[in-house]
Amino acid sequence: MAIKPVELSKSFRLLNHGPTTMISAKHNGVENVMSASWVGLVDIVPARVSLVLGKEAFTRELVEKSGYFAIQVPFATQAEQVLDMGESRKTTPNKLESVELFYQESFDVPLVAGSAAWLICKVLPETEMQQKYDLFLADVVGAWADDRVFRNGHWHFDDVSEELKTLHYIAGGQFYATGKGINLKDHPNAIG
Amino acid sequence: MAIKPVELSKSFRLLNHGPTTMISAKHNGVENVMSASWVGLVDIVPARVSLVLGKEAFTRELVEKSGYFAIQVPFATQAEQVLDMGESRKTTPNKLESVELFYQESFDVPLVAGSAAWLICKVLPETEMQQKYDLFLADVVGAWADDRVFRNGHWHFDDVSEELKTLHYIAGGQFYATGKGINLKDHPNAIG
Repeated sequence: MAIKPVELSKSFRLLNHGPTTMISAKHNGVENVMSASWVGLVDIVPARVSLVLGKEAFTRELVEKSGYFAIQVPFATQAEQVLDMGESRKTTPNKLESVELFYQESFDVPLVAGSAAWLICKVLPETEMQQKYDLFLADVVGAWADDRVFRNGHWHFDDVSEELKTLHYIAGGQFYATGKGINLKDHPNAIG
Repeated sequence: MAIKPVELSKSFRLLNHGPTTMISAKHNGVENVMSASWVGLVDIVPARVSLVLGKEAFTRELVEKSGYFAIQVPFATQAEQVLDMGESRKTTPNKLESVELFYQESFDVPLVAGSAAWLICKVLPETEMQQKYDLFLADVVGAWADDRVFRNGHWHFDDVSEELKTLHYIAGGQFYATGKGINLKDHPNAIG
């Protein structure tokens, strides 16, 4: 496998199917990772995302102070890690011990190794929205994916084992993996 | 099957796995339905959602003028209907001919029959966010689901055929159905 860059104009496809994610950030040498289902898309050009970050989240301060965060799209095999990262750093200071982080050149934002895809995002200065609704908007400034599952701008989930599907979280420890492909590419509205 | 109400405090679970949706609205007797992948969650109590509605969307005016919209979570069998509803009402005035709409008592918002779940939402008066980012926030004021797939506050996708899974859209006519359940309910962070 190889980690390949994803064109920013195609990066929305990494999130469009609504996967559960993990958010990472770093400020002043302190790194953190948290799980987050509430990541959304706001635009394609520019590639723009939304993220809900509760005021109690340790990661929020890292995001506010550094102005950056990364979204990772985990594999099905990472389900337990996603729940582990749901623990607060405040009550579990050593929560990152089991996580391998890495960096992409020219970005000082930690990434969780072994994920399916990564998007590094630069926060927009919308402090009122952040305060009132805990809602952060950010532009995607770098994106990468594991080429076993995403290449040439497309996911290839039908070609891989269950372990390499992505995750969709509900609540109470219940996830669903991404399922079977339904391809209607000949439909007149099959654009994008 | 029966359409059963869903407690508002559990209604986030209808969307938490990131399904593709269809949005419906009505103003002055004019109904419309459009497809939308960019629906998110902002809060649980109150149950609050986000929706990106482009300025060119016919439905946007109905939402702005009525102050309400509904989110439907379609079944896998509705994939073609979802793409059909991606056509603009402006260029295809008869696009609703193939769609059966119905209403729930005390709500004047049309719902698409045959879906897996429905959430009726009341728009928050955040006009600056709407203008600047096409982003609408709204509180869920009513929610229902088909009890074959959602009951007692939980999805039951592992018990049903592929036809009754929900949909996750990527682009270019490519959907993935919701896949296999991964249940880690005994994990210490398996809350919510």
